[in-house]
Amino acid sequence: MHPVKKLHNDQERGFASDNYAGVHPEVLAAIGAANGGHQVAYGADVYTARLQEIFGAHFGAQAEAFPVFNGTGANVLSLQSLLSPWGAVVCAETAHINTDENAAPERVAGIKLLTVPTLDGKLTPELIDAQAWGFGDEHRAQPQVVSITQSTELGTLYSVAEVTAICEHAHSLGLTVHMDGSRIANAAAALGVPLRAFTTDAGVDVLSFGGTKNGLLFGETILVLNPGASSGLKFLRKMNMQLASKMRFISAEFIALLEGDLWLRSAQHANSMARHLADAVDGIEGVTITRQPQANAVFAILPAGVPDKLREHFRFYDWDMATGEVRWMCSWDTTTADVEAFVGALKQLVP
Amino acid sequence: MHPVKKLHNDQERGFASDNYAGVHPEVLAAIGAANGGHQVAYGADVYTARLQEIFGAHFGAQAEAFPVFNGTGANVLSLQSLLSPWGAVVCAETAHINTDENAAPERVAGIKLLTVPTLDGKLTPELIDAQAWGFGDEHRAQPQVVSITQSTELGTLYSVAEVTAICEHAHSLGLTVHMDGSRIANAAAALGVPLRAFTTDAGVDVLSFGGTKNGLLFGETILVLNPGASSGLKFLRKMNMQLASKMRFISAEFIALLEGDLWLRSAQHANSMARHLADAVDGIEGVTITRQPQANAVFAILPAGVPDKLREHFRFYDWDMATGEVRWMCSWDTTTADVEAFVGALKQLVP
Amino acid sequence: MHPVKKLHNDQERGFASDNYAGVHPEVLAAIGAANGGHQVAYGADVYTARLQEIFGAHFGAQAEAFPVFNGTGANVLSLQSLLSPWGAVVCAETAHINTDENAAPERVAGIKLLTVPTLDGKLTPELIDAQAWGFGDEHRAQPQVVSITQSTELGTLYSVAEVTAICEHAHSLGLTVHMDGSRIANAAAALGVPLRAFTTDAGVDVLSFGGTKNGLLFGETILVLNPGASSGLKFLRKMNMQLASKMRFISAEFIALLEGDLWLRSAQHANSMARHLADAVDGIEGVTITRQPQANAVFAILPAGVPDKLREHFRFYDWDMATGEVRWMCSWDTTTADVEAFVGALKQLVP
Amino acid sequence: MHPVKKLHNDQERGFASDNYAGVHPEVLAAIGAANGGHQVAYGADVYTARLQEIFGAHFGAQAEAFPVFNGTGANVLSLQSLLSPWGAVVCAETAHINTDENAAPERVAGIKLLTVPTLDGKLTPELIDAQAWGFGDEHRAQPQVVSITQSTELGTLYSVAEVTAICEHAHSLGLTVHMDGSRIANAAAALGVPLRAFTTDAGVDVLSFGGTKNGLLFGETILVLNPGASSGLKFLRKMNMQLASKMRFISAEFIALLEGDLWLRSAQHANSMARHLADAVDGIEGVTITRQPQANAVFAILPAGVPDKLREHFRFYDWDMATGEVRWMCSWDTTTADVEAFVGALKQLVP
Repeated sequence: MHPVKKLHNDQERGFASDNYAGVHPEVLAAIGAANGGHQVAYGADVYTARLQEIFGAHFGAQAEAFPVFNGTGANVLSLQSLLSPWGAVVCAETAHINTDENAAPERVAGIKLLTVPTLDGKLTPELIDAQAWGFGDEHRAQPQVVSITQSTELGTLYSVAEVTAICEHAHSLGLTVHMDGSRIANAAAALGVPLRAFTTDAGVDVLSFGGTKNGLLFGETILVLNPGASSGLKFLRKMNMQLASKMRFISAEFIALLEGDLWLRSAQHANSMARHLADAVDGIEGVTITRQPQANAVFAILPAGVPDKLREHFRFYDWDMATGEVRWMCSWDTTTADVEAFVGALKQLVP
Repeated sequence: MHPVKKLHNDQERGFASDNYAGVHPEVLAAIGAANGGHQVAYGADVYTARLQEIFGAHFGAQAEAFPVFNGTGANVLSLQSLLSPWGAVVCAETAHINTDENAAPERVAGIKLLTVPTLDGKLTPELIDAQAWGFGDEHRAQPQVVSITQSTELGTLYSVAEVTAICEHAHSLGLTVHMDGSRIANAAAALGVPLRAFTTDAGVDVLSFGGTKNGLLFGETILVLNPGASSGLKFLRKMNMQLASKMRFISAEFIALLEGDLWLRSAQHANSMARHLADAVDGIEGVTITRQPQANAVFAILPAGVPDKLREHFRFYDWDMATGEVRWMCSWDTTTADVEAFVGALKQLVP
Repeated sequence: MHPVKKLHNDQERGFASDNYAGVHPEVLAAIGAANGGHQVAYGADVYTARLQEIFGAHFGAQAEAFPVFNGTGANVLSLQSLLSPWGAVVCAETAHINTDENAAPERVAGIKLLTVPTLDGKLTPELIDAQAWGFGDEHRAQPQVVSITQSTELGTLYSVAEVTAICEHAHSLGLTVHMDGSRIANAAAALGVPLRAFTTDAGVDVLSFGGTKNGLLFGETILVLNPGASSGLKFLRKMNMQLASKMRFISAEFIALLEGDLWLRSAQHANSMARHLADAVDGIEGVTITRQPQANAVFAILPAGVPDKLREHFRFYDWDMATGEVRWMCSWDTTTADVEAFVGALKQLVP
Repeated sequence: MHPVKKLHNDQERGFASDNYAGVHPEVLAAIGAANGGHQVAYGADVYTARLQEIFGAHFGAQAEAFPVFNGTGANVLSLQSLLSPWGAVVCAETAHINTDENAAPERVAGIKLLTVPTLDGKLTPELIDAQAWGFGDEHRAQPQVVSITQSTELGTLYSVAEVTAICEHAHSLGLTVHMDGSRIANAAAALGVPLRAFTTDAGVDVLSFGGTKNGLLFGETILVLNPGASSGLKFLRKMNMQLASKMRFISAEFIALLEGDLWLRSAQHANSMARHLADAVDGIEGVTITRQPQANAVFAILPAGVPDKLREHFRFYDWDMATGEVRWMCSWDTTTADVEAFVGALKQLVP
């Protein structure tokens, strides 16, 4: 027996990303509960069966759950299951699928992204129309799916009415709707409505349900909310290298998240920390909050030179090198003390 | 707080597959040790740095480690990093990459597999020559890589000399060598040599180092043993959806496996259980051991009807429907009692 | 004005391949007839409309014609239009799609080929069963199409009854049938039946109708014989770089071939030259005709050293380096004098 | 013998596209000269060898020519030969590769296009910088190639100095440069410089040399101007279905174009017709020439309703439905009488 040593300071936290955080203790306990003995591999286990029921309770009995490894996998497979080989996806220019996945949609599934510039990361029916045209013209990649992110990469939220309007418009054009929900729990917490209110009930066809940023060790779930719109995920998941052999553990993690209210508690906490952080820095001279925080992200512009000095103490990312805008993410494990220490350090750096 | 209930009998084990088993307790403890606080996502964490050192100690300081999610990912990315877009891979017809990955190599990376029939799942220089030709002919997919599995899908082993001969032959033709090591620990335990003896030192260029079947929750590692032969894995891993955000946990699992001798203990145990099982059934009338077990797999032919009755008590798979051959896999958690109960049940079913 | 000089001896012909031959004068005349003035690009021209009628007359009014550039394009697009992204194709190991297209099916469309060894290049229902299994198993590429070549790469022919049996068997399993007809005219000429007898009427779903080897400058046509089985060819053709802008000329070529009997005259001639060649060499000592010529190919084994000496005068290819088998192809422009000169040269080389 | 009837009016021409035109008589004569006898297929023929010399004379002896079927093929293969599998291409939003090839770059070769909005279809070093960043970041598709179109899709031209500046800038960043020259002859004619002045000598690495729009029946040529920058075209061409079997004829067409000055005569004529057309309509009330014609395209805005009425007599395309802008293309076969008839018809429609 040779136990692995803790090599890091487990009391150190920053504001770089919600996937810098670790695993929520209740999730780790769930993995332990699912351990021991043998279970059929690749999803024919009792935990995955139970997870299907739980997702059904949240999203409607028609919902079909396909646990996968990561968010890139969830997004690419969701889109591929909605598309013909000649199809294209309308999305915001700032969408994660466009900017941060090293072209995984293009490379793995040959998907054309038809991007639209937006002010706040959000599509509208009018913005969709900027790309949803050329139907039947073989020279143009055929628009077949609209993909929106909830909450968006810019920390903004679609209201229930906004998602509904997008879905109605997309469907009226013959397109389906995918939602990238890598931070869906934060969105639900911020909107104060059940998960299905802005997904199934609003007309979303397929959802990438995020787990990792909400406290899982790993794992996301593709949720087919409208089974008539999607095909082949069983096969797409395997052939695209997203089928976990010991799937019982991903499923147990999601059960920990969704059987009770852990998903909501964690998201509410992260959102409230972001609110707290934004409020605390708002009065500081030279600091401008650039977007009102709606979920767990805070965007700000600091005096020149300050970000790098502040980063000597706390990790966080530049968002826009041109404007000097930075991004601070709060997580399920961010504490009030973390926020206060951060604000204190910032105050010391601003003259 | 809403703890996840154990939904299965954690004392029930079968002989279906080594990925029906769960997580070794030492591995789970390592995940716990790596938890808490924040760590940089996507591999720039202290556990992944430490893992690099550990792999270096086993395989040579030149070795570069790329943890990924699963075996399909490890194999496809390994091959793609060794190939031109016009390249092809020589492998046994029975290779897992050919039979069990829903064409992931073809679909994700456009790879042509040039397969060779074998008696025992093993390639030889002569068998390689059956497909390694047509160099420079643009009508033929260009043979560029030889892929072998250690231990093979048929439970057989390559000796150090056999791997060396394959590597020398492949290299003399200008091909590189990939080893699918999803059960590499079982191979090393059976051969009784260090891991590097039949990999780095034998001339293997890139290795898929298996973790899941050796007691991990999830995770495999691509090991580039010859950095001059492989390119782009950093980018290939991301674009092919195999980059874990909370990579510290995969790395901690592998540290648990490889810093001490857990990898070897677990593999030796599984192999010895297979040996025990084969010996115990060998004398039973009507039961034929079809291949001498060299690692942790036992192949046998039973009297007609017996497999299905035996499966009422213990899970295992048919291997060849035509001949009636079945496969029994032992795992790190197989017990002597499991073997004896299984053999007892079998004896009762054979007249 | 600077006329292009003839740089080659236009009276020199060999037996290497039917695509070493040039353009039939009637075809060149048709290109001239279609020239002049403007016609809508990409297929909305009067010649392509007329071609559709002509193909309808040969294959049934339901047939849809998609002219493309070459045989690789015709085959890959035909298959892709019949397959899900997770589908696979059962074909003979010797199929051109497997051996001579540098893995175009795998690379362009991610297609898995499930190959079957055959004696004579021909599949049968029994041989199809060797690969048509594993339906619904996500680990196995899903068999969805059977692809046969008529006449085959080995110069053999499927009878009407054989094609019918294959189609019935494939359809009973839920698979569709593709025919690679790069030498379909030679097959029809040899069988002495109308084109539709062994295609539409036998149950073939999609056909690659060959033109180049039957005297065109360039061009093949994908014929969808069963429109319910195929989808998206309009888009697949463009996105896979097989949509000709000045399509009127490909269409005019095919009109020249198929409006009258040029296709049949040329094929009958090539076949009879092959028959003549086989008969003429049959008695020569040391020469063995290895396969009875059924279309326009002759396969033979010559005394060692003879092929290379013979090639000093006439081009032809080795077929199997191991056995010394060579292949001689006859073409629409092969003359009796060509055959006699060739046989004469061979006789002088054989002691 | 059954000659193909002329089915169209060969004196009717429009202004829709330069690929609505037919084959230049000198090109058709060249095909005839190359006909007869046998020539080795797939490019090992005397015409392709001669073509290599001719391209060498125009572009430098280092240039390597790969004839292909069409422009989409030339562009996608050029780019793929310059890229790693993880690479991306910086191009104008209006680039043909982005808008008119049904995502062929993405689908066939997994290429990410990093697009930049432009005023006139032209990139600049500054505009390139908007996308040429993130080197080494595995989350971002790696910028490796800049692709420019000469003349552009908007009828504009890069000067020699502009191309040179782009190449210098791209190379200084480690990127290579591809030029889409589907209308390169028109560009050279307009600039009044040799072809190599704004290609080889300006630093372009790979060029898609257009033939179809300059009077060929079919065929484009990929020209590798900097052999160190490109790899694998021999194999890429075959596996991507762009290798013509009877290549001698494509080569003969290009010899007809480039051995003398046919390429230049035809392009000068088309350009002068465009100039003539622009001048003739410029004074008409209600007609606005929106871009000064630099090559063979004229863009204009007409009074509402006029375009559709004008199209009852002459074909042409809308360019921008939002602004009412239309595009008129002149071709090698456009006559002064065509222009005058067109202008006459327009004048009658404008009140």
